[in-house]
Amino acid sequence: MSVAAKYYPNEPTEPKVVTSEIPGPESKAKIASLGEVFDSRPAYFVADYAKSSGNYIVDVDGNEFLDVYAQISSIALGYNNPALIKAAKSDQMIRALVDRPALGNFPGADLEDILKQVLKFAPKGQDKIWSGLSGADANELAFKAAFMYYRQLQRGGHGVEFSEEENSTVMKNTTPGSPQLAVLSFKKAFHGRLFASGSSTCSKPIHKLDFPAFNWPHGEYPTYKQPLAENEEYNKKEDDRCLAIVEDLIKSWPSPVAALIIEPIQSEGGDNHASKYFLQSLRDLTTKYNVVYIIDEVQTGVGATGKFWCHEWADIQPPVDLVTFSKKFQSAGYWFHDDRFIPNKAYRQFNTWCGDPARMIIAGAIGQEVVDNKLVEQCARVGDYLYGKLEQLQSKYPIKLGNLRGKSRGTFIAWDLESTAERDQLLKLLKSNGCNVGGCAEKSVRLRPSLSFEEKHADIFLAALEKSIEQL
Amino acid sequence: MSVAAKYYPNEPTEPKVVTSEIPGPESKAKIASLGEVFDSRPAYFVADYAKSSGNYIVDVDGNEFLDVYAQISSIALGYNNPALIKAAKSDQMIRALVDRPALGNFPGADLEDILKQVLKFAPKGQDKIWSGLSGADANELAFKAAFMYYRQLQRGGHGVEFSEEENSTVMKNTTPGSPQLAVLSFKKAFHGRLFASGSSTCSKPIHKLDFPAFNWPHGEYPTYKQPLAENEEYNKKEDDRCLAIVEDLIKSWPSPVAALIIEPIQSEGGDNHASKYFLQSLRDLTTKYNVVYIIDEVQTGVGATGKFWCHEWADIQPPVDLVTFSKKFQSAGYWFHDDRFIPNKAYRQFNTWCGDPARMIIAGAIGQEVVDNKLVEQCARVGDYLYGKLEQLQSKYPIKLGNLRGKSRGTFIAWDLESTAERDQLLKLLKSNGCNVGGCAEKSVRLRPSLSFEEKHADIFLAALEKSIEQL
Repeated sequence: MSVAAKYYPNEPTEPKVVTSEIPGPESKAKIASLGEVFDSRPAYFVADYAKSSGNYIVDVDGNEFLDVYAQISSIALGYNNPALIKAAKSDQMIRALVDRPALGNFPGADLEDILKQVLKFAPKGQDKIWSGLSGADANELAFKAAFMYYRQLQRGGHGVEFSEEENSTVMKNTTPGSPQLAVLSFKKAFHGRLFASGSSTCSKPIHKLDFPAFNWPHGEYPTYKQPLAENEEYNKKEDDRCLAIVEDLIKSWPSPVAALIIEPIQSEGGDNHASKYFLQSLRDLTTKYNVVYIIDEVQTGVGATGKFWCHEWADIQPPVDLVTFSKKFQSAGYWFHDDRFIPNKAYRQFNTWCGDPARMIIAGAIGQEVVDNKLVEQCARVGDYLYGKLEQLQSKYPIKLGNLRGKSRGTFIAWDLESTAERDQLLKLLKSNGCNVGGCAEKSVRLRPSLSFEEKHADIFLAALEKSIEQL
Repeated sequence: MSVAAKYYPNEPTEPKVVTSEIPGPESKAKIASLGEVFDSRPAYFVADYAKSSGNYIVDVDGNEFLDVYAQISSIALGYNNPALIKAAKSDQMIRALVDRPALGNFPGADLEDILKQVLKFAPKGQDKIWSGLSGADANELAFKAAFMYYRQLQRGGHGVEFSEEENSTVMKNTTPGSPQLAVLSFKKAFHGRLFASGSSTCSKPIHKLDFPAFNWPHGEYPTYKQPLAENEEYNKKEDDRCLAIVEDLIKSWPSPVAALIIEPIQSEGGDNHASKYFLQSLRDLTTKYNVVYIIDEVQTGVGATGKFWCHEWADIQPPVDLVTFSKKFQSAGYWFHDDRFIPNKAYRQFNTWCGDPARMIIAGAIGQEVVDNKLVEQCARVGDYLYGKLEQLQSKYPIKLGNLRGKSRGTFIAWDLESTAERDQLLKLLKSNGCNVGGCAEKSVRLRPSLSFEEKHADIFLAALEKSIEQL
């Protein structure tokens, strides 16, 4: 029995669109009313989660959409998954909700089990975790770990005490206590919207305008010619060009580059893929220059690329230093393996809650379902099927399916339209044809279904896509 | 019937300490084991939350402590509160856990109700909310709101578009797109441990060392002579001295001061109280210089000071611009009332989750219980009782109960020992005598019971305190 059939016996067999416009009248009224207390301008429609099931999201007007966006790529298993409902009803969950501990000071007796259940799904080469609350939070916690590690090495090791000068200057936000260190990220990167994560984000002006930023550099992320198999020489040169820029920035940036952060596929930035060669070469460079190597798996993690963690495709050796996660794992944090990333003193990586056990319980349950049901393998299979069909469609509509990317990367697939307006129009038509799909970058469409997406869902999506392209 | 009796029929009638050391052997073993996957160095003991009830936290060795610390001041109603258990078991909660929405794009039909239930408990003068995930996150979201507001005013209003120069420079983290603007906070302040919140934090070096910081100023927070009623003239002069420093910093800081953030009582920093006059004068100054006024109620909020929100004691007019919350509300975010703090475009204050509806449901349930059971009033009453008894004890042990503060501020009470070592020793003795109590700043003890703390609990605490002081 297929996973969707087992989990979601009541999942619709096809989309149903009952309103002439989306959002429909009921959604519109609710968006307006919600707007009195909340910024509801970005709302696409108002969902009825009680009626949503599996791959289908239902709205308050009764529209039933095949969901190929899945809450900005953050629903792993589909809506109202029975295994997660079981976890949500557990006594452990109820205690995590009503007796939320300060996990650092007063860990519960079950914290170790909760963490170990999550750790079962750590990326290869990683075996420790620090927990946070969101993707941005995870990245900033990783930056903190990287800065402490870097400064401890500069200072001469874990055992060396802070100097009096450090202790006094830090209280004035000045060097050396508050050192001028940089994180190197990439153009078009997205690592979150707080202030340090925001300084490493370089996706769109609207994400950053008016916020003070650290003077941190952005390298160039390779832009490959597709299809990859036919452009190996060109793409290798592109990798080398970008690697030279990274090395130059590390050597020449006015403040030391303590860490490098990269998405194995830039997701908000347009589904730009980095090659195994590029990701491995960054390991070599970061080792050479003693830069902490951070992989951001917030959007790429948890199976959607056909590996549990996307950077496992690159088999980077030795393993990267820190890997951040959130979204489809519903929790957040970073993985690591080197004990030297544990700060030399307690209370340096610390806050009141140190994560949320309720969300960690969900993460553990998601991981278990993914493994038990072989959902990574399924996603790889369905993704290959979907990509093949999209290639066929591309030969019919080469302009509307430009620069198709994501081959052999599960359902993590994207392509370009000719303009933002055309892309937005296609997304609108897809909704009217029953599919909820998201965009990224200026003119890309990104596919982000949950892991319960099957060939039959792909067929429905493909039919809606062809119809929508015809209507463009 | 008292609230504790109604809620917690099985609450212990007195503490029970069964191990000669704390942490006991079982806790120690579990802390060591937990340490293999998590930084467990700060753990006081390992709790058994299933057995904890009301004001008592039970550990895995069977010790039963009266909890006067309450998860670093973040448990509002006591352990295993039946109203919260009911909320945790609701269908609404289960959906919030298993179908976590991207609230900005796909709000659920019940989001408006969830938010309005939380908004019922907004501080006087505030009627809108933006939701986050932690105290640090709430403060940084408030900073973003403040910076956008400030730059929009500078630019000439909500309707003025960003310039090409802004759009291009922001992608390089340089001015004017990434403007050099400052947040003014205070020495000894604690506003969180991320990078922007960390730059406004000025509590202890260990909270900040090795992390890059923004060049933001710290004013001086008034240090009053106690008791307040006998030192009005001195304290007014102290207020004026600190206000002059704030005004000078606003006028002279190298980058414009866009916002000022202050805790009405500096909590991590040692329970330093700001007078009504000081907080109102900051309103006058921030209005005069067009600085956004942010009150941080992360630790002071939700009833513990005898008002639902501590700054309501000061009745600041006109109301402050932004009020941040977290901890005892279990959720996080900021309150506001002026529409101009809604950014001029969608997606400027935005992220994938935009908060956590599961935690907002808990916040709404907590607020309702607080109001329905008159827990703010109870906390004021119990606090007065406790403070009076502490004053009596102080006349007996003036050195061990130095600088007692928090009169008429509910159970939000603190005092000083003579040194860090002596304070730590007192906390250790209090644990051995059955009371879990926390410290703050260098040598202070802070009381942070939940709102279900009653006179009978105060008596038990007072007896343990006297015994511990005798043992010092």
